[in-house]
Amino acid sequence: MNLEAIYHRPRGNWAYAYDTATLHIRLRSKKDDLSEAILIHGDKYAWERTVSKTVMHKLPSDERFDYWQAEVRPTLRRTKYAFELRSGGEALFYEEKGFREDEPADPHKMFDFPFLNAADVHTPPAWVKEAVFYQIFPERFANGDCSNDPEGTEPWGGKPTPKNFFGGDLQGVIDHLDHLQELGVNAIYFNPLFQATTNHKYDTSDYLKVDAHFGDNELLKKLVSACHERGIRVMLDAVFNHSGKEFEPFKDVREKGKDSRYADWFHVMEWPIAVKDGFPSYETFGFEPLMPKLNTENPEVKQYLLDVAKYWIEEAGIDGWRLDVANEVDMQFWRDFRRTVKAANPDAYILGEMFHDALPWLAGDQFDAVMNYPFTDLVVDYAAKGIIGADRFASKLGELFASYPDQANAVAFNLLGSHDTERLLTLCGGSKERMKLASLLQFVFPGAPCIYYGDEVGLDGAGDPDCRKCMEWDVDKQDRELFRHFQQLIAVRKEHRALRDGTLEFMHAAENGSLLVVQRQDEQDHFLIAVNPGEEPARIELDVKQMKWQEMLGEAELDAAGGKLVLELEPCGFALLRANAAFNAFGFGVGEQL
Amino acid sequence: MNLEAIYHRPRGNWAYAYDTATLHIRLRSKKDDLSEAILIHGDKYAWERTVSKTVMHKLPSDERFDYWQAEVRPTLRRTKYAFELRSGGEALFYEEKGFREDEPADPHKMFDFPFLNAADVHTPPAWVKEAVFYQIFPERFANGDCSNDPEGTEPWGGKPTPKNFFGGDLQGVIDHLDHLQELGVNAIYFNPLFQATTNHKYDTSDYLKVDAHFGDNELLKKLVSACHERGIRVMLDAVFNHSGKEFEPFKDVREKGKDSRYADWFHVMEWPIAVKDGFPSYETFGFEPLMPKLNTENPEVKQYLLDVAKYWIEEAGIDGWRLDVANEVDMQFWRDFRRTVKAANPDAYILGEMFHDALPWLAGDQFDAVMNYPFTDLVVDYAAKGIIGADRFASKLGELFASYPDQANAVAFNLLGSHDTERLLTLCGGSKERMKLASLLQFVFPGAPCIYYGDEVGLDGAGDPDCRKCMEWDVDKQDRELFRHFQQLIAVRKEHRALRDGTLEFMHAAENGSLLVVQRQDEQDHFLIAVNPGEEPARIELDVKQMKWQEMLGEAELDAAGGKLVLELEPCGFALLRANAAFNAFGFGVGEQL
Repeated sequence: MNLEAIYHRPRGNWAYAYDTATLHIRLRSKKDDLSEAILIHGDKYAWERTVSKTVMHKLPSDERFDYWQAEVRPTLRRTKYAFELRSGGEALFYEEKGFREDEPADPHKMFDFPFLNAADVHTPPAWVKEAVFYQIFPERFANGDCSNDPEGTEPWGGKPTPKNFFGGDLQGVIDHLDHLQELGVNAIYFNPLFQATTNHKYDTSDYLKVDAHFGDNELLKKLVSACHERGIRVMLDAVFNHSGKEFEPFKDVREKGKDSRYADWFHVMEWPIAVKDGFPSYETFGFEPLMPKLNTENPEVKQYLLDVAKYWIEEAGIDGWRLDVANEVDMQFWRDFRRTVKAANPDAYILGEMFHDALPWLAGDQFDAVMNYPFTDLVVDYAAKGIIGADRFASKLGELFASYPDQANAVAFNLLGSHDTERLLTLCGGSKERMKLASLLQFVFPGAPCIYYGDEVGLDGAGDPDCRKCMEWDVDKQDRELFRHFQQLIAVRKEHRALRDGTLEFMHAAENGSLLVVQRQDEQDHFLIAVNPGEEPARIELDVKQMKWQEMLGEAELDAAGGKLVLELEPCGFALLRANAAFNAFGFGVGEQL
Repeated sequence: MNLEAIYHRPRGNWAYAYDTATLHIRLRSKKDDLSEAILIHGDKYAWERTVSKTVMHKLPSDERFDYWQAEVRPTLRRTKYAFELRSGGEALFYEEKGFREDEPADPHKMFDFPFLNAADVHTPPAWVKEAVFYQIFPERFANGDCSNDPEGTEPWGGKPTPKNFFGGDLQGVIDHLDHLQELGVNAIYFNPLFQATTNHKYDTSDYLKVDAHFGDNELLKKLVSACHERGIRVMLDAVFNHSGKEFEPFKDVREKGKDSRYADWFHVMEWPIAVKDGFPSYETFGFEPLMPKLNTENPEVKQYLLDVAKYWIEEAGIDGWRLDVANEVDMQFWRDFRRTVKAANPDAYILGEMFHDALPWLAGDQFDAVMNYPFTDLVVDYAAKGIIGADRFASKLGELFASYPDQANAVAFNLLGSHDTERLLTLCGGSKERMKLASLLQFVFPGAPCIYYGDEVGLDGAGDPDCRKCMEWDVDKQDRELFRHFQQLIAVRKEHRALRDGTLEFMHAAENGSLLVVQRQDEQDHFLIAVNPGEEPARIELDVKQMKWQEMLGEAELDAAGGKLVLELEPCGFALLRANAAFNAFGFGVGEQL
């Protein structure tokens, strides 16, 4: 047994309350080292009367490690636990005090989940699991009101530059809600809407006012209501790490220097404020002088921003906040932010922008979830660019899932492109089949998928500013076949819980190859997802118990009467198969839930 | 290189702000596997201009792993980092995205400490590092006022039982402050003082009233003032997990059942409240029906308890709260508790009772420190009972130190016995020499030592209730030699920062043997601590650069003119040596700070 590889530490992703009645306990071991892992658990004050054992099941592995999980429902809310590890004939026990050869009996030496307090449970809003998001960059989605166009607005469909304007606005969104409804999405993520000088609006000058070029506060309210009437939720972008240079307090600081009553609203390192050698003398986003970092540790600033957060929930009825540069803002602020937002709307989704390991923000006291860039990168590298193999894709995803609590994974924000990246079609080298394959993956893993506006009709684009092209509204120029693909993906995901929240297993991940087969299932459904982003055809025979399999993205029906399901995939081919319920008597031979 | 053993994960004990300017970054590797570890770090937005390398130094190892640490002071508050690992001729790099053979250059793939926000820094009060605590169990320390004795009070010095009373009170403490001052302690930890029915007072009936048998609120204020005049701080016991059965809200619940307006102040699982088969139908501490768990998730209860916490700081001027059964109370409560307490007294010490791994409570948002029971157990097993060897003692301590941020270790509450355990002398089998040796260890490691009342004059006692004997005030019956030993320990620790906060190295830890040599040093001082809890004499030659060594617990001066320091320790022998500054020209040949 490889003892250096064994890892467990209470809390975080290793021991957490999944809900107010259930604990998830995880253990890491060297890949293929253990044959079995068993959780020994009970109440420390009544050990003998409460001790029981739960066989742990395997989560997806990564390159180096296996991950084991047990779900336990302690009757008495206190849980002491230890692990029984089996490897061939060998058995070993693992408790907080270390490894031992004999079965532990003293709960005081064991790992401890002292009490399952409801207040500490990470509980994201239930609707996010069911959500399919659509990201709108408002300046480029639709121009519904020419009267509010900025000076120098260029004709719709022109070449985007860092600074030009095309007149997109909220009325344009209202006018095109039919498009979203037809597509099937049920949530919108808006890039910033508040008063700012740029076309992207990440340099807020007034947090309480919709940008005049987009409309006004009343129009935003109208838009949110119109969305709600169609069952579409609305998430706004909270740019609270920094303001823009025209934000009144910063203007005051620029004018009055350290005598400004807002001097402590920012992080000024040296007066007078200046930029030397590219480095501003005050903290900024990046080193961008136009985006001064807000001092969220100043109670006055904190209260101002919390009031903003509350205002838009109460005033416009929004359903969530996406937090820009969330990782650079202090955690004390985010804890108060969560409290404020959830008090105003317990169902609000709090989504942090994080590019790196985000566990410290996902303990239940700060964010519901983070933007799932690691997922983005993996799908892009595997499916869009074909630069990593199926085995690496599967193992890195396994590592990612094991690194967070299940409920955070289930509401992660799974995007494949955004206003900051090349568009998916471009990442796919213009290959529509590859793009379909990539988007299929987006829709079958835990986490809420998000479609970047226009991807569904075949918009392409290199990085910023090219990815911020105007939406194509000429139906003849839209790729309607791609649109139908997205419609199908959305429909099938919305209809089948197994694709959102079922158990997940990698049934096949070709070593240094491209073929991947994933299984997702729950009590109702069995799905097989097979993709081949390679340049050669791929074929696999799978042992299955179900006889009939339905292709959900097409008409084909596959027969596996002999217990063998044969899958043949062309280069860039894919399949989304559902076991036909009528013949679905036995379930799978592998991957059964414990 | 053993890759399965390499561990790092941002935050927690692995990457934390030590203060508002300094990050500590740690890495774990298989013991003796790496020859060198180097931290590569810089600002993600100006990588090329800011990247630098810091050689990591080794912390004490444990049985299986080495721990490496670098202290870095990022000029720009944002830190991306990766590790360069060297093992003989082999070199490998480790970043968030995994291992790689070539030097990483893309900060976006590295580990991230996104921003050093002052609000998130774990900052315990500075005085705790300098503190030596004295724990007083008030009913048994001194009876200074017979007029408040409970009915049936027994004569001082009688045999303690779970329920009897001897009349100890606050006036008794005031009367004996000279004793504490003579001993040299500068902080008192009081077991509960508030109105309750038992002799231990852990069943609070009124949180705002000093128990009538101990005195009254005015007397507590007087006591705190008297302590402060002598430079002694006062920490009280906050029993907020549960109340007592006579707490008015619980009395109301007992009387009115679910119609009580306090019904939601507790966790009642089934009405009417009852005890069946030993299990109360409401949550309790343990399964003790007389200690109903408080519902700290109820805002009314929370506010009540926060007001209590604030009241005693503002009213009596106390310097800290020790939190009973802190691990079973929700974290949201403790976060608000910290905020309330620190607002009332930024220098208040918040100490959680935790028997297990307490990292999740030591992130800066909840406790300053925890009661260091793992330290207790190790010193007791090694020095008092002699059931583990020096190697295990050193390796488990290494594991413990590596598991928390340095600043939490430095203010841990290092006790060797309490009202809940056998007394130290009894744990030592009655051996005073062994007890001196154990207490020496208590005074030379990070963490504030605490002496349990009476240990310093030779009180013995088995577990509760025997460890709660009356204090011995007859000087002729006190062990004054032991008292002088503690006086010396306290004085030398208070005088020399190196013993509180210097670098720590295990110079020798006999494999399955007893001899241990520890080195602590700072810019001013070099100390060697040698202990031999074994039953055979022990001898060791150490290579040192200093010529003269002074025995700080005696008169002896040791000569090491030839570069060799020879230590000979009798069974249960020990030495606390300080390099004589006059000859201290060169520093140590090993363990120099990087």
